[in-house]
Amino acid sequence: MAKKFVIGIDLGGTNLKIGVLDLKHKLFAKEVLSTRNFSRKERLISAIIDSIKTIIKNNGIKKAEVLGVGLGLPGPIDVEHGIVHYLPNIPGWKEVNLKKILEKELNLPVFVDNDAKLMSLAEYKLGRGQGFKNVICLTLGTGIGSGVIIDGRLYRGANNAAGEFGHVPINEEGPRCNCGGIACIEAYIGNNRIIREARRVFKRFVSPEELDTLAKEKNKKAIKIWVKVGERLGIALTGAVNLLNLDAIVIGGGISGAGKLLFDNVRKTINKRAMSVQAKHVKIFKARFGNDAGLVGASILVEEGTKL
Amino acid sequence: MAKKFVIGIDLGGTNLKIGVLDLKHKLFAKEVLSTRNFSRKERLISAIIDSIKTIIKNNGIKKAEVLGVGLGLPGPIDVEHGIVHYLPNIPGWKEVNLKKILEKELNLPVFVDNDAKLMSLAEYKLGRGQGFKNVICLTLGTGIGSGVIIDGRLYRGANNAAGEFGHVPINEEGPRCNCGGIACIEAYIGNNRIIREARRVFKRFVSPEELDTLAKEKNKKAIKIWVKVGERLGIALTGAVNLLNLDAIVIGGGISGAGKLLFDNVRKTINKRAMSVQAKHVKIFKARFGNDAGLVGASILVEEGTKL
Repeated sequence: MAKKFVIGIDLGGTNLKIGVLDLKHKLFAKEVLSTRNFSRKERLISAIIDSIKTIIKNNGIKKAEVLGVGLGLPGPIDVEHGIVHYLPNIPGWKEVNLKKILEKELNLPVFVDNDAKLMSLAEYKLGRGQGFKNVICLTLGTGIGSGVIIDGRLYRGANNAAGEFGHVPINEEGPRCNCGGIACIEAYIGNNRIIREARRVFKRFVSPEELDTLAKEKNKKAIKIWVKVGERLGIALTGAVNLLNLDAIVIGGGISGAGKLLFDNVRKTINKRAMSVQAKHVKIFKARFGNDAGLVGASILVEEGTKL
Repeated sequence: MAKKFVIGIDLGGTNLKIGVLDLKHKLFAKEVLSTRNFSRKERLISAIIDSIKTIIKNNGIKKAEVLGVGLGLPGPIDVEHGIVHYLPNIPGWKEVNLKKILEKELNLPVFVDNDAKLMSLAEYKLGRGQGFKNVICLTLGTGIGSGVIIDGRLYRGANNAAGEFGHVPINEEGPRCNCGGIACIEAYIGNNRIIREARRVFKRFVSPEELDTLAKEKNKKAIKIWVKVGERLGIALTGAVNLLNLDAIVIGGGISGAGKLLFDNVRKTINKRAMSVQAKHVKIFKARFGNDAGLVGASILVEEGTKL
């Protein structure tokens, strides 16, 4: 059998990542462009096409060796038809049939999905969620990306909009969330909210990374902030654990760097507040894949799509 | 083909209901005993066996015509083996292999499940959840029973303990719940909590039924209590709607008698707080089956079990 490759794309608000992966989803070539260089939708799509052609050429791959192209985008996607409904943080995208556009230009099978779902797929198939049936995967960052695996399959819900764990409310009253809701967990522990809380406490700008370092140096104020982040995340997860009787929770993304302090307080809160059978059963893991989770997930998407 | 029947049993903290149903799950004979007459586990099991034999005899049914016996019990059940782990409101039950005991005594196929799951099955297969793929069914009473249908199947979770919607927290701080948790939705809108709130407001005992009547007579205090119940239920449901992108929510049980006032405020809260795609998509229904939901669900359980 001839060697085969997959092209994975992870489009974020900041970076456009392009990777070449083998059929075991091992990444062996990667390029990163700044998304901000391409303000218009048409230019961004051209950049995606060019970058795919370039990475194929630069790695001495024949087109016939490319099984397909998988893309993860930060917004709601019609997976079946490859249509991007819109991208909350990249203006100008509305009902774009990206699959059709790219397949015409590239003459390759193209598959498109939400980036958080692809990260979940990567963790479920090859990372810390492996071997479990019912798993929630979270990516903590500016927002909370998430995906829910139910009975061994990525659960998409009625409109492909399932898995919005970031918008589970944890209070009746509370801060307004970007989604239009009130007191969603994301409105408490999204990056910007943590920075705002750190500014209130330290009277200056403190990045989540610095806050992490401060906590590791035993700074009490920094520790207190992370404890609260862990507790609040634990409260939102308590609802999911009781409702879904999960096998595992996989937590990744920038904020998960806070490590032991964060994870300990998530665990403690679930043990304290969730029902005993569900709390005892659920395992909590730090994600295996870091920045490349989206590319690995995109590669799995192509594998699954071309098998059908 | 000879005529076939199913025996359904719904064991509650107050009543033991026994029904005969046809293969279309139509109930055509029913008896109700008081559970409280049988304080010991052994006597209650004997009463179940006697009542099954009696209802078969009284309706002129031959044993060969009975397809099987289905039982719903108010607690966590090992469905595969028919073992009752325990019953929170009926003392003395711990790891009882009810399936084995009854099959030996009756020489009929026996199937056992949690009562709220059976009610959900009834609403999903034959009631208001029919035709949808992703549904949550609630029974509002002393506790909140619930079941989650995912991709067209009753979702059981890792330990058969999924679907505990009543124990989704709606606040970081709040009343202690019977489950050991804090600020669970059940701790706000369970029967007893509503009665307590009504006592605080009216300075006397007011049953949920009277509170309902008062609200219909435009009593402002009563209306305010129901509005709050609806809002709080709507907040807990917002999390489930965002996470699971549900097609439908089916609400039954005594409290759902509050009708329009309750349903309007659940709807309003979901529209206000859930994400727009998910909120627009989800339908909210009042349950079709009342007191007989458990018997209908038990009958469906037998049908599904004997098909395997």
